[in-house]
Amino acid sequence: MIQGIAASNGIAIAKAYQLVTPDLSYEAKPIQDPNQEVSRLEKALEISKQELEKIKAHTKKEIGDEHAQIFSAHLLVLSDPELINPIKEKINSDNVMAEVALDEIANMFIDMFKNMENEYMRERAADIQDVTKRVKAHLLEVTFPDPALIDEEVIVIANDLTPSDTAQLNREFVKGFVTDVGGRTSHSAIMARSLEIPAIVGTKEITSTVKKNDMMIVDGIEGNVIINPSDEELATYKEKQETYARQKEEWAKMKNEPTKTSDGEQVELAANIGTPEDVSSVLDNGGEGIGLYRTEFLYMGKNQLPTEDEQYDAYKSVLEQMDEKPVVVRTLDIGGDKELSYLDLPKELNPFLGFRAIRFCLENEDIFRTQLRALLRASVHGNLKIMFPMIATLEEFRQAKAILIDEKENLKKEGISVSDQIEVGIMVEIPSTAVIAKQFAKEVDFFSIGTNDLIQYTMAADRMNEHVSYLYQPHHPAILNLVSTVIDAAHNENKWVGMCGEMAGDPIAIPILLGLGLDEFSMSATSILQARTQIHDLSIEKLASYKDKILSMGTTEEVVEFIKEKTE
Amino acid sequence: MIQGIAASNGIAIAKAYQLVTPDLSYEAKPIQDPNQEVSRLEKALEISKQELEKIKAHTKKEIGDEHAQIFSAHLLVLSDPELINPIKEKINSDNVMAEVALDEIANMFIDMFKNMENEYMRERAADIQDVTKRVKAHLLEVTFPDPALIDEEVIVIANDLTPSDTAQLNREFVKGFVTDVGGRTSHSAIMARSLEIPAIVGTKEITSTVKKNDMMIVDGIEGNVIINPSDEELATYKEKQETYARQKEEWAKMKNEPTKTSDGEQVELAANIGTPEDVSSVLDNGGEGIGLYRTEFLYMGKNQLPTEDEQYDAYKSVLEQMDEKPVVVRTLDIGGDKELSYLDLPKELNPFLGFRAIRFCLENEDIFRTQLRALLRASVHGNLKIMFPMIATLEEFRQAKAILIDEKENLKKEGISVSDQIEVGIMVEIPSTAVIAKQFAKEVDFFSIGTNDLIQYTMAADRMNEHVSYLYQPHHPAILNLVSTVIDAAHNENKWVGMCGEMAGDPIAIPILLGLGLDEFSMSATSILQARTQIHDLSIEKLASYKDKILSMGTTEEVVEFIKEKTE
Repeated sequence: MIQGIAASNGIAIAKAYQLVTPDLSYEAKPIQDPNQEVSRLEKALEISKQELEKIKAHTKKEIGDEHAQIFSAHLLVLSDPELINPIKEKINSDNVMAEVALDEIANMFIDMFKNMENEYMRERAADIQDVTKRVKAHLLEVTFPDPALIDEEVIVIANDLTPSDTAQLNREFVKGFVTDVGGRTSHSAIMARSLEIPAIVGTKEITSTVKKNDMMIVDGIEGNVIINPSDEELATYKEKQETYARQKEEWAKMKNEPTKTSDGEQVELAANIGTPEDVSSVLDNGGEGIGLYRTEFLYMGKNQLPTEDEQYDAYKSVLEQMDEKPVVVRTLDIGGDKELSYLDLPKELNPFLGFRAIRFCLENEDIFRTQLRALLRASVHGNLKIMFPMIATLEEFRQAKAILIDEKENLKKEGISVSDQIEVGIMVEIPSTAVIAKQFAKEVDFFSIGTNDLIQYTMAADRMNEHVSYLYQPHHPAILNLVSTVIDAAHNENKWVGMCGEMAGDPIAIPILLGLGLDEFSMSATSILQARTQIHDLSIEKLASYKDKILSMGTTEEVVEFIKEKTE
Repeated sequence: MIQGIAASNGIAIAKAYQLVTPDLSYEAKPIQDPNQEVSRLEKALEISKQELEKIKAHTKKEIGDEHAQIFSAHLLVLSDPELINPIKEKINSDNVMAEVALDEIANMFIDMFKNMENEYMRERAADIQDVTKRVKAHLLEVTFPDPALIDEEVIVIANDLTPSDTAQLNREFVKGFVTDVGGRTSHSAIMARSLEIPAIVGTKEITSTVKKNDMMIVDGIEGNVIINPSDEELATYKEKQETYARQKEEWAKMKNEPTKTSDGEQVELAANIGTPEDVSSVLDNGGEGIGLYRTEFLYMGKNQLPTEDEQYDAYKSVLEQMDEKPVVVRTLDIGGDKELSYLDLPKELNPFLGFRAIRFCLENEDIFRTQLRALLRASVHGNLKIMFPMIATLEEFRQAKAILIDEKENLKKEGISVSDQIEVGIMVEIPSTAVIAKQFAKEVDFFSIGTNDLIQYTMAADRMNEHVSYLYQPHHPAILNLVSTVIDAAHNENKWVGMCGEMAGDPIAIPILLGLGLDEFSMSATSILQARTQIHDLSIEKLASYKDKILSMGTTEEVVEFIKEKTE
């Protein structure tokens, strides 16, 4: 049994699929017949093309045309005579193995493209590298893992899952994830929750322990992995799996219920989304709004900035799908760990304490203004609220809002209609802003507490750094005191407060946050029904009576023990 | 005129000395006579050796034997026949310029050492690189700047000054610094204040603007640099220089005065030090204690950890020199931007949010226990207070204190006497600890607010990052609110609060901090007399009456304007 961090609920039972790059090393040997090497090469090219066609079709269907284009590029590389002919010539002229010729010619092109001025050409180097690996794997007759080609039920085992890995996973057959690294807020964890499959991250040793085709049980509730279980264990977990399925059915009954506590107080349960395509899942799970629309995805995975019209279409689509339900759009939060290849962002020693989000936007006003214009134009199609990220000082908020007002006036002058009901708020994710929330509350329309960053700055601990991730403590009294300061400050000015970090969907945090008076909880869409069920059984009056006691506690452990005891 | 950040007070007038690595590129040409190349090489080696001997003697005299050893190592390299003979052979066998042969052979050795397992051997690669540069400069007949060899009055111009640059500066002749990068808390700024010479940092353009031997005026009061001034300007600034000298004489009269406000309240003015050698300057400047003894220097610039006895000697020396005055020793704060070559610290994406200080010590208990034993043994020689850095949770403090108590008992069992009066406190430099200072105040003996880090975490801005350094705002209301929370929490439990960040010596911050009730101000020794003079003219009662108003302000600008107006 291996223990890790439970990152997404549920029980999965299936065999292991190792998503790891195979060993592509080989020994160069003298060859007998160059013609045989050329035909080996042609065969490997052919299989690679067939695979890429399949992956392309799959990606197009599951994620969209734009993402599938990368595989069109890969296919072009494989059919390019300027790359393939020199390889064949080298086999004949130098009398070498196909692997050797492939490596030499490919590396020559990779080096050439890598040193080009043009960013687009430099990316071609990565394409050639990717397809060369695939062809070489087929020459060496080793399996090249292809998440898109999975065609039986599996549990994916990986060191970590990148966004592009998960984008290609065949969701029909992937029953769970287990990774070596990561925490509850890592990309793989968030993705697993959105796919509603069990996941365990941060096991440290899963890739080195599990062998191909090992049978596995993944218990995403407790954070346990059992490898090659006994019949008895299998029976126990199948029962647990059914219990969980019944519980989900219970939760599903809450879809159209209001989110009310046992003493009749109503709060809002909203969802965090990244693209217009995510909205259907929000509605399916009974979401009452979008508490955080991360607009970064519009800017990522392309070669240039999105146009105003592209953005307008996306914002409009989300607003229309949500009907008149509130949609909080966060303006561009780029920098830090999120880079854009086509912008020349500075390399920083401490990117999390660096030039990102609103700091970047206020220095790159043209990019910022384009986004604001798109948002303002879309505002007439629904209930839009605009939110600025990484606000550390009042001046930053005032400056950002002034630009927004300026663009609003520009649009009106151009005869374009703009809603007059747009609320303008800020993310509270920097300690300074939480500390003087009282001063901010006079000027903003709402706050949304971004706990992922607020926790890491308040504890001075990078949550992605395994040496200090134990300090990432959402239930720490200092965090709760800051959250409480923000809520009190807002209510004092009759403003509302939401939370859009992972903490908002955490069953331990929910009763505490209700007691502190939080108005809106924004989480993964798939957590909403469970949260609504939990809230129905909680009394705000009772929870509010614990507030002073909790805020005067000294440690996370005290808080968690206390709230568990009181809500059992 | 160039504008920068005024980093150290005073006016300097002297010619420019460019501390920049010269261009060491050359064109390889065919040679006539190998013997001539060998004799060119021998001459360059000889000059390099003479220079290194001078630098070594200077370093030994000014900084100490241990630091001078690096130059002994460099001299050994230059006399090593295993390096030198192959270069000569290459000149003869390949018929190449001395530069070419030097480069090829040196690079061969550098590559060889670089790839060795042993850390000590890897450092030899850096030694060879250093001396090769020097020899090559002499072959090319370009000047290789040597801060130790300065023998006339100059103003040092550099992109930035590293600790090893400043260690070698001939303090007799260096009248000021001007750098391209850095802020008030950068190494060069702190060093300038400790040397009591004017400095301006962060000018962005000084190295590209100033030419060799340009005459310069450095106004460290206003932050201005004037290049090749007119006679009129020279006269004006000579007058300003004299006024400043007279002001310093006034301050000097305060050396033996108590630090009392105009309404008779007493506070403590202490100094931050790095080595036992710094104590004399503290006493010369009328310091009433050491508010921060940074013990890192004991661990830096060597090949292994300092022994318990080495540490004991240093701590004892500081305590004895300070007589019975309080000495607050901070335990090892390593990691972050401070690396130790002989410890294998992890490379981190965000080192400022990483594995450092107490986090490192609690995971490396043997290193921590050695330091604590040395401190406990030294405690009988004066008034020792022990302080743990980077405390984010109560558990960390409890764990560190338990280890201290354990070692105290061990020593007593061994029959070694230990003081029973040692106060044990913490640095408050992480927002979480400031927020729940009330809970901490019950368990610690004192707090010392480390503003350099507290500000950068609270504002989520790396102060070393020029893109966001504008957010490093010591007078921001959020910082002042946290400072006030800490002071109130401590006083409620009858504990005292100091401040050991750069803010404690800042003339704008001093009246604010007095009004908030700060007990101890720890600063560069050279700022003490000015601070005492300033405090004598301030009324605590009046300043305390501004507290609520200041804490409810929204921006740094408001605070600074208000306090300037009130204390004019």
